[in-house]
Amino acid sequence: MIEESMIEAANATLEADLDADYAGLGARLARRGVDIEKLTARAMSFGVAIPSWGTGTGGTRFARFPGAGEPRGIMDKLDDCGVIHQLTGATPRVSLHIPWDKAEPALLLEKAEQVGLGFDAMNSNTFQDQPDQPKSYKFGSLSHTDALTRSQAIEHNLECIEIGEAIGSKALTVWIGDGSNFPGQTSLSRQFERYLDSMKAIYSGLPDDWHIFSEHKIYEPAFYSTVVQDWGTSLMTAQELGPKAQCLVDLGHHAPNVNIEMIVSRLIRAGKLGGFHFNDSKYGDDDLDSGTIEPFRLFLVFNELVELEDTPGLDLAHMIDQSHNVTDPIESLIVSACEIQRAYVQASLVDREALESYREVNDALMAAATLRAGFRTDVEPILAMARLRAGAAIDPVACYRRSGYRARVAEKRPKVTGSGGGIV
Amino acid sequence: MIEESMIEAANATLEADLDADYAGLGARLARRGVDIEKLTARAMSFGVAIPSWGTGTGGTRFARFPGAGEPRGIMDKLDDCGVIHQLTGATPRVSLHIPWDKAEPALLLEKAEQVGLGFDAMNSNTFQDQPDQPKSYKFGSLSHTDALTRSQAIEHNLECIEIGEAIGSKALTVWIGDGSNFPGQTSLSRQFERYLDSMKAIYSGLPDDWHIFSEHKIYEPAFYSTVVQDWGTSLMTAQELGPKAQCLVDLGHHAPNVNIEMIVSRLIRAGKLGGFHFNDSKYGDDDLDSGTIEPFRLFLVFNELVELEDTPGLDLAHMIDQSHNVTDPIESLIVSACEIQRAYVQASLVDREALESYREVNDALMAAATLRAGFRTDVEPILAMARLRAGAAIDPVACYRRSGYRARVAEKRPKVTGSGGGIV
Amino acid sequence: MIEESMIEAANATLEADLDADYAGLGARLARRGVDIEKLTARAMSFGVAIPSWGTGTGGTRFARFPGAGEPRGIMDKLDDCGVIHQLTGATPRVSLHIPWDKAEPALLLEKAEQVGLGFDAMNSNTFQDQPDQPKSYKFGSLSHTDALTRSQAIEHNLECIEIGEAIGSKALTVWIGDGSNFPGQTSLSRQFERYLDSMKAIYSGLPDDWHIFSEHKIYEPAFYSTVVQDWGTSLMTAQELGPKAQCLVDLGHHAPNVNIEMIVSRLIRAGKLGGFHFNDSKYGDDDLDSGTIEPFRLFLVFNELVELEDTPGLDLAHMIDQSHNVTDPIESLIVSACEIQRAYVQASLVDREALESYREVNDALMAAATLRAGFRTDVEPILAMARLRAGAAIDPVACYRRSGYRARVAEKRPKVTGSGGGIV
Amino acid sequence: MIEESMIEAANATLEADLDADYAGLGARLARRGVDIEKLTARAMSFGVAIPSWGTGTGGTRFARFPGAGEPRGIMDKLDDCGVIHQLTGATPRVSLHIPWDKAEPALLLEKAEQVGLGFDAMNSNTFQDQPDQPKSYKFGSLSHTDALTRSQAIEHNLECIEIGEAIGSKALTVWIGDGSNFPGQTSLSRQFERYLDSMKAIYSGLPDDWHIFSEHKIYEPAFYSTVVQDWGTSLMTAQELGPKAQCLVDLGHHAPNVNIEMIVSRLIRAGKLGGFHFNDSKYGDDDLDSGTIEPFRLFLVFNELVELEDTPGLDLAHMIDQSHNVTDPIESLIVSACEIQRAYVQASLVDREALESYREVNDALMAAATLRAGFRTDVEPILAMARLRAGAAIDPVACYRRSGYRARVAEKRPKVTGSGGGIV
Repeated sequence: MIEESMIEAANATLEADLDADYAGLGARLARRGVDIEKLTARAMSFGVAIPSWGTGTGGTRFARFPGAGEPRGIMDKLDDCGVIHQLTGATPRVSLHIPWDKAEPALLLEKAEQVGLGFDAMNSNTFQDQPDQPKSYKFGSLSHTDALTRSQAIEHNLECIEIGEAIGSKALTVWIGDGSNFPGQTSLSRQFERYLDSMKAIYSGLPDDWHIFSEHKIYEPAFYSTVVQDWGTSLMTAQELGPKAQCLVDLGHHAPNVNIEMIVSRLIRAGKLGGFHFNDSKYGDDDLDSGTIEPFRLFLVFNELVELEDTPGLDLAHMIDQSHNVTDPIESLIVSACEIQRAYVQASLVDREALESYREVNDALMAAATLRAGFRTDVEPILAMARLRAGAAIDPVACYRRSGYRARVAEKRPKVTGSGGGIV
Repeated sequence: MIEESMIEAANATLEADLDADYAGLGARLARRGVDIEKLTARAMSFGVAIPSWGTGTGGTRFARFPGAGEPRGIMDKLDDCGVIHQLTGATPRVSLHIPWDKAEPALLLEKAEQVGLGFDAMNSNTFQDQPDQPKSYKFGSLSHTDALTRSQAIEHNLECIEIGEAIGSKALTVWIGDGSNFPGQTSLSRQFERYLDSMKAIYSGLPDDWHIFSEHKIYEPAFYSTVVQDWGTSLMTAQELGPKAQCLVDLGHHAPNVNIEMIVSRLIRAGKLGGFHFNDSKYGDDDLDSGTIEPFRLFLVFNELVELEDTPGLDLAHMIDQSHNVTDPIESLIVSACEIQRAYVQASLVDREALESYREVNDALMAAATLRAGFRTDVEPILAMARLRAGAAIDPVACYRRSGYRARVAEKRPKVTGSGGGIV
Repeated sequence: MIEESMIEAANATLEADLDADYAGLGARLARRGVDIEKLTARAMSFGVAIPSWGTGTGGTRFARFPGAGEPRGIMDKLDDCGVIHQLTGATPRVSLHIPWDKAEPALLLEKAEQVGLGFDAMNSNTFQDQPDQPKSYKFGSLSHTDALTRSQAIEHNLECIEIGEAIGSKALTVWIGDGSNFPGQTSLSRQFERYLDSMKAIYSGLPDDWHIFSEHKIYEPAFYSTVVQDWGTSLMTAQELGPKAQCLVDLGHHAPNVNIEMIVSRLIRAGKLGGFHFNDSKYGDDDLDSGTIEPFRLFLVFNELVELEDTPGLDLAHMIDQSHNVTDPIESLIVSACEIQRAYVQASLVDREALESYREVNDALMAAATLRAGFRTDVEPILAMARLRAGAAIDPVACYRRSGYRARVAEKRPKVTGSGGGIV
Repeated sequence: MIEESMIEAANATLEADLDADYAGLGARLARRGVDIEKLTARAMSFGVAIPSWGTGTGGTRFARFPGAGEPRGIMDKLDDCGVIHQLTGATPRVSLHIPWDKAEPALLLEKAEQVGLGFDAMNSNTFQDQPDQPKSYKFGSLSHTDALTRSQAIEHNLECIEIGEAIGSKALTVWIGDGSNFPGQTSLSRQFERYLDSMKAIYSGLPDDWHIFSEHKIYEPAFYSTVVQDWGTSLMTAQELGPKAQCLVDLGHHAPNVNIEMIVSRLIRAGKLGGFHFNDSKYGDDDLDSGTIEPFRLFLVFNELVELEDTPGLDLAHMIDQSHNVTDPIESLIVSACEIQRAYVQASLVDREALESYREVNDALMAAATLRAGFRTDVEPILAMARLRAGAAIDPVACYRRSGYRARVAEKRPKVTGSGGGIV
């Protein structure tokens, strides 16, 4: 962790400018009838979970280029996540991936408390074969033609729930890579039936106060068909399972050009939106840093969430899910958490009364301009003030770099050499 | 109509070669355990409806280039449809579009009988303003913010049902262009609520033995959001309305790369697949001739339909929906009907027992090869024999051209000049 | 035109707030080492041309819904363009489309002077048939198989140059819809040869101080192949023609996911970038208002232009090319000009020295953050101050609405009824 | 290798049926004026190279699921390639990847001769870090900001040429993953300059009778920009380098919806088409088996090649480049070689005289139908006869399975366990 005094010292040099900027923005917002303090309070109340696996350097099928101080296991990952939350004040929970993060629950809880974090949704893994695994997932897991393979995958998910219960998690996210690479390889209909049957078995093992999230993805690792390929199939799944089942939307898992904010709106209407995996992308499931490719798209998602925030029963699990291939993962997670929070605050300052009045009379131009006015507002002073008040860093990346954290852990954590082979 | 004797004469010159080809194919299929006569019987039983509007030359927002003998109204269109069915034996019904095809029901029935056709699903039109229309659809119809505009659109749909009842139709297809062109222009959620309310009003006016088809489209004419943008929203709509509501899949209304056969499979599973609008496309909703751009994709759709053809309650409305910009529309509809029938026959000769056994053991290569073997088979002799036996033409386009039909109607039907302006 | 006093009165009510905002922004920028006055000067020097046809309500192949006061011809359009420039100070030139805008050159010049505008690139039209045209463009124009049709299209382009010379234009933009709707319909190679031959004939008629712009488009109105389908073919064309030939980039004419700013960079490197057609889009060539769908993309284009602005010989023709289907076209053009100017100013305030130093050491995170810092800055006070200083309106849309211009012209210009038919 | 007698025995059981099918097809083709023997001769003359790396099981960033008998190194790979050629008679050459396939040239030549193969283009690898490599390619190779890293990458390419010269190769294929993951991360223009400079250094080391192929790819492993992102940049590169530089088209490296056959046509026109990497795909660079997703697209590529085959100087390098994740790679390569050959033969039997006459008069319907008639023809008997006459297998997959080759090598080659980890 980083010394509190370090953060305080870093903040001290920036506080005067921040105060001036915050006051200036407050005055401008007041002129638009917006109370900056309410926005700052909203920013402070916002949190997004960190995926444990996001703290390691990611890669592609071609190669992986590790950085210095790669985490050796879940305890290192929790350390890194603790630093991210310390500096941003916006990432209070960590999402674990089993078996990657398997450890004694007591030790997990102890470590989490030490670094000031809680546990978010559990993630199962049936898209890889583990060394000692009796049945291979090469041709599928929950939807495999072989009943024993399906059972193994179901058992694994039940184990994830068990671990989750021990550490205070309240949800299981199920994402599978099952599908096919050739037209004809599988029966699209029967494969889906098998998936539903397996999911029902997992659902029946779900504690009463838990949710199960079905996550869709259009392609990859399967390249012709994927069992849960879009939100329509995800919705059918959640409907079939029951009230504890909901849909999780990963921003990068859609066909080109798809309007994601409409999916958000529809799933809320169906009472089935459970949460998000945030990231950004340009081509496929690029898993790039949130808000770096198409920031307006992220804003439009939050625009729906804010517009519909009073929907009864809406209680979303926000999580980042990215692959950091060319940056220090801690830095990317810091920036991403801030960008997500930024979109939330920007969406929060939209003049919704004006917006609705323009919509009512089909004044498309002014309705759109009203929305863009929210996006255009530079809310950085609000985010920075929220961090300062929470004891986090005004400029978290600069503070992180000055702290020397990466160099320090690189001394303890062994260097990973080579480019991880790559698969091609 | 074309003289029967003309068709017979044309067939006479081709029959010997057809017999030889049919016998040769029969022998090769027999070796694979397939009875050619069963396939021919299937081909003969297959029918796809013609859209009345498809008989006129289509265009783009840039221009329209009419051909000779453009139909002047629904009676001319029915003449043209009659010729198509006469030559193909595969297009026994016509689908009307109101108000374009409005006419005395008695006259419609008389004309239809005369040209040997029945009536398929009715199509409403609330994406254009008619000259005398009180309320404009510029900003929407069934989902408009204005209640009177919605009422007008509902009334129009009820009138379509009324006309349909008088001529023996049993279904109403609802496709609307409602949506928005700017982020913020409409409330995505409330616009959908208004759409659902309007659809419920129409549904309540639906006769007991009718179906209502909800048709989705990702974009165009709305360019930022569309109310019924994908099959997920279409499914939600059909679920909300009730058992008489089903989803219609237009092959050209999807995001790039989307696996359409999966959607077909999912909607069948949900008990909500109602039918198709067939066409082909490369970029957007290109409305090109069926089977001319990606014939394997058309085959894969029929592969699902044949695999699941015994699903209880499955009774599909097959229709063509294309825009013929550079061909004689009659010729394009003839060829398209044949291509759709071809895909159906190819899907019907797949060795499904072998396919399933390969799938069961995850022999992806042989499963895929088994499916492709169906697609690769040149079933033209089967299609031609089905036509011959039905009194249609072995080579329908050649026969049509020799008949001089287009020149004949061009004498009666006035020439359309200019390029239809274009809209840009 | 709008009374100067009206604009002044409107500005008077906003000036105090603007001064405060401008001073505040200036102070914040100064802290980052940026001189706000230099940015304001850049904003004032920036201009983008208006397409004459953009002043009328656009539509789709399904319908067109005209608004009140549609311009009756080029003189009305010039009036509308004059108002746009009056209010924004950012649209000093108009681009004409022949034959739509054909008129006596002397009258055009007189009107232009009266409304304070000059003439930008000329646009030819060989994608529509005019009523009296001997040869049809149904199957192509400059690339048609028929030599006489090609000659007709060449002559039309030469006439556009002639008109352009008379009114002080210095460039001809050639966009053709030629292509095909079916695989096999045309020889892709020979069609391109015919196009090149025709372009050479036009090029040989180009005055020495003119440019000819080749504009590519992936599809529409042709739906299988388009002769100038992408920037590669556009580049080959410009290379083949000679030094006066350059490529024009329309932001909406690309395949999904394509990185447009890379194309900009490559064409500059090849010495062949001639200019832009600005608009925005989500799905296809949606022709939506600039900066309303993906504002960051527009910024990234300008980022390249600013980074490479000192490239010898770079002299770009900036033009808007949009279709306004649900707004008052004047308002959309006002907002779009401002959004384009905004992107230019945001790109201008990027700290390029810091950016380069981060790039040099592959500090991807800070390089990206440095670029985003420019985009995130709300430069509205700079744009508004540039307008104020140029005698234009601080809030141009509000001022336009208050002026009653639309109602006034609607009294003179006849109402257009019906929805323009639509083509489907 | 497989015993000749085994192949002969397998063929013996199929020969009578093949003779009958071949005679039947010959008669049908003769009726269309096509000499089947000429097609068979063309089929026999056709060859496509095998990528050495294609003989191992591929994977994704999520996982890799190896099969039995994975090749241990280049000698095993050459054995596998030998079997593929033995059974298909259509894959006479192997393409090596350095450093993966590094070995004593003399040993490579000896092994190649033993298995009846030659060597195709060499492939360099600067998208991965090798264990002992001084400079990392994490941030680029030929276009890296660091001169020493660029030198290292240039040296590696020169070494590939050196190895290639020793084994009789005549071409170097350069594909790099260089690009960026964030807007702003790199200067798009300067990165390209550095790439061109590096390529010039390699070009200057190219023997006189060699070619260098520039291969473009829209994205992956870089997810925001890629230096050689499309054929336009590839063409600029080849033009800048000189006459020995050509462009290589990988079927899976394009934006969605792009018309690849147009690119083929354009590059031939520019005198810069060098060859292909064949595969198939649905979503991204899926690297699926050739001809299994969109067989008509493959046919359309060959349609261009056959139409333009008499272009002076056209001499193409055909290669497969696929990732085999769920099949036995040997089987996938066998089937793919046959599918590519199939497309070539189908394109060869198109009635080009009729096609041209229809095109000349813009008979789009019959031109398209003429092309489809080639695609629809089931040329399997021609392919099988070509194989039989070349001493290969009538049914290569069946013969391969019966041979027990995989089981045999699996005894010698150690089992690979786990799922290769995956990278995520």
